[in-house]
Amino acid sequence: MSEERYKKGMEMLKIMNPKSYKQLADNLEDIAPDMARFVAEFPYGDIYTRPALDLKTRELVTVAAITTLGTAPLQLKSHIKGALNVGCTREEIIEVLMQMAVYAGFPAALNGIYVAKEVFEELDNEK
Amino acid sequence: MSEERYKKGMEMLKIMNPKSYKQLADNLEDIAPDMARFVAEFPYGDIYTRPALDLKTRELVTVAAITTLGTAPLQLKSHIKGALNVGCTREEIIEVLMQMAVYAGFPAALNGIYVAKEVFEELDNEK
Amino acid sequence: MSEERYKKGMEMLKIMNPKSYKQLADNLEDIAPDMARFVAEFPYGDIYTRPALDLKTRELVTVAAITTLGTAPLQLKSHIKGALNVGCTREEIIEVLMQMAVYAGFPAALNGIYVAKEVFEELDNEK
Amino acid sequence: MSEERYKKGMEMLKIMNPKSYKQLADNLEDIAPDMARFVAEFPYGDIYTRPALDLKTRELVTVAAITTLGTAPLQLKSHIKGALNVGCTREEIIEVLMQMAVYAGFPAALNGIYVAKEVFEELDNEK
Amino acid sequence: MSEERYKKGMEMLKIMNPKSYKQLADNLEDIAPDMARFVAEFPYGDIYTRPALDLKTRELVTVAAITTLGTAPLQLKSHIKGALNVGCTREEIIEVLMQMAVYAGFPAALNGIYVAKEVFEELDNEK
Amino acid sequence: MSEERYKKGMEMLKIMNPKSYKQLADNLEDIAPDMARFVAEFPYGDIYTRPALDLKTRELVTVAAITTLGTAPLQLKSHIKGALNVGCTREEIIEVLMQMAVYAGFPAALNGIYVAKEVFEELDNEK
Repeated sequence: MSEERYKKGMEMLKIMNPKSYKQLADNLEDIAPDMARFVAEFPYGDIYTRPALDLKTRELVTVAAITTLGTAPLQLKSHIKGALNVGCTREEIIEVLMQMAVYAGFPAALNGIYVAKEVFEELDNEK
Repeated sequence: MSEERYKKGMEMLKIMNPKSYKQLADNLEDIAPDMARFVAEFPYGDIYTRPALDLKTRELVTVAAITTLGTAPLQLKSHIKGALNVGCTREEIIEVLMQMAVYAGFPAALNGIYVAKEVFEELDNEK
Repeated sequence: MSEERYKKGMEMLKIMNPKSYKQLADNLEDIAPDMARFVAEFPYGDIYTRPALDLKTRELVTVAAITTLGTAPLQLKSHIKGALNVGCTREEIIEVLMQMAVYAGFPAALNGIYVAKEVFEELDNEK
Repeated sequence: MSEERYKKGMEMLKIMNPKSYKQLADNLEDIAPDMARFVAEFPYGDIYTRPALDLKTRELVTVAAITTLGTAPLQLKSHIKGALNVGCTREEIIEVLMQMAVYAGFPAALNGIYVAKEVFEELDNEK
Repeated sequence: MSEERYKKGMEMLKIMNPKSYKQLADNLEDIAPDMARFVAEFPYGDIYTRPALDLKTRELVTVAAITTLGTAPLQLKSHIKGALNVGCTREEIIEVLMQMAVYAGFPAALNGIYVAKEVFEELDNEK
Repeated sequence: MSEERYKKGMEMLKIMNPKSYKQLADNLEDIAPDMARFVAEFPYGDIYTRPALDLKTRELVTVAAITTLGTAPLQLKSHIKGALNVGCTREEIIEVLMQMAVYAGFPAALNGIYVAKEVFEELDNEK
């Protein structure tokens, strides 16, 4: 275990998406606790902390990637929230999702937009 | 045919990536000329012209999407060039490609980086 | 906006799948209304109106493509309905889905068949 | 129909996963009964009966493949059960799923682990 | 081995694509001869011989599926030839490939068209 | 940077596939040297060193995953070599590749077998 990377990752997660990570760590607790640690260490500790890209761009390219995969609505949801948390607007997120129609096809883009709709409605209801 | 969208798309392509589009249109000329027109009209005329995202972000999310697909090195090459044409730095592009290791796996990220290496070397040799 | 393509697309949709499009447009109304317009204009206005393929073949190749993607059960459902609307038989649709086992793997084919089963049961219950 | 392959497949299924196959055959009965026969004949009759790999390894590579696809949670569930049925431990299955983060990305690995969690909880509740 | 299915498959292959199968069988001869047999038996012996779809439609949905995968240019090439062998026109094949832009994205469609271009040029040169 | 994980990863790579890693690190040297370090640290330092699975099984599930992706022939090549390096037989590797026909489709399995053929021929020629 590398204490320092884990700490850096957890600090990054505090800025980006503490709730989603908490949920993920709770889900993995009994079955694969090391996996939760790897998520903190590698994506958040190693990658998101690098200075070459700002966090808004990092979240938007992640939204693009997961929408293209089309297989991970849960993670798309959590990164749409992450994008909002670091300052992206709803309009920017929708725009990225729409652009995916060109590269990943209309079904992928539409399903991404439906996930965003769900996130936005949840956030509006929390208010 | 919608003359206006085509014209808007071709203007956008002049800014973003005139060489790659020329090559695509030449390739399609005998076999599917309407497809070249659709490329100008829909991605470039309809999508890239929308004001909600700047062109740098649009190209970076496209690089993310095509790297995630993993099936389109030719188009990745042309969008890495497009990203440079609209002002992204090489470092930013590499950073997006590295981040893809998290979402699309290490092979996808590595293959994306190899495509970028090829593009950068071509550009260095043109000088 | 290109009025004419939109109109052509909406006419095509009236033949192919008016209910699914209505649902899609309603879903997108608040969040991405332009996306609904793009769906009418590009796939339906530009592509499905082309004379080179009959609508039955167009729907069957779409069923094949979406089954292969494996990520879009909602859109598969709507295109299975579309295939029936333009005159494909249930047997033809099932046959396409079974053939997908060869190219996209058995899980993709089985999941496609389960979606078809759902559609056929819904239609039988509507009677 | 090739009676012998079907019989060999059904015997293999008795060892590996009789419940999942029963469920699949029931689901397909009205809509695509030949598909159920193909599943018995080709994967189970032709492939799993070959001596070059033991059944534990066969199930683990299948778990890896379906996790990588990311589109078939139902089939992943049934093969995680199959892996347990032929003698894999829960720890081995989780380990394969975690390793998929490297090749198919973290979302694919996490979603695979969530499916395993569901399977293990079901089995614990059956006791 | 099921002699009858193999024979039926080889007869089907004689109609559809004897050259491509010969090449495949030669490639597999030293390394995986059973795989060549499986290709004759399952796709060609079991699936393509079923009466529910004509061979033209079977080849067009296969072209759609392989274009959507985007990972198998060799097999796409051989099925484009197969489509022509059973009576599809070049225009119909191109039309299917263009339609894939909607479902699998523009890069997948463009790469499919480039493969078709290669096939058509080879055939023109053989004359 | 976490010195210890890197060292553990490099030791693992010495056992599994020193040549392929050397090639990868050389390729990345000018363009993304941190990526080479991440490859040593995360897959090899963090994952492959875990005791829950032996290295033979780890390489076979990786071969299954990359064959399923279908987008990474370079990495498939290097993991087929890795599998041989840790004691898998050629027959076992071919068997995994053939099994992929069931889950990822025949084209993915065939393309995997062609990559293996290339690797085996290279190794035979080196003798």
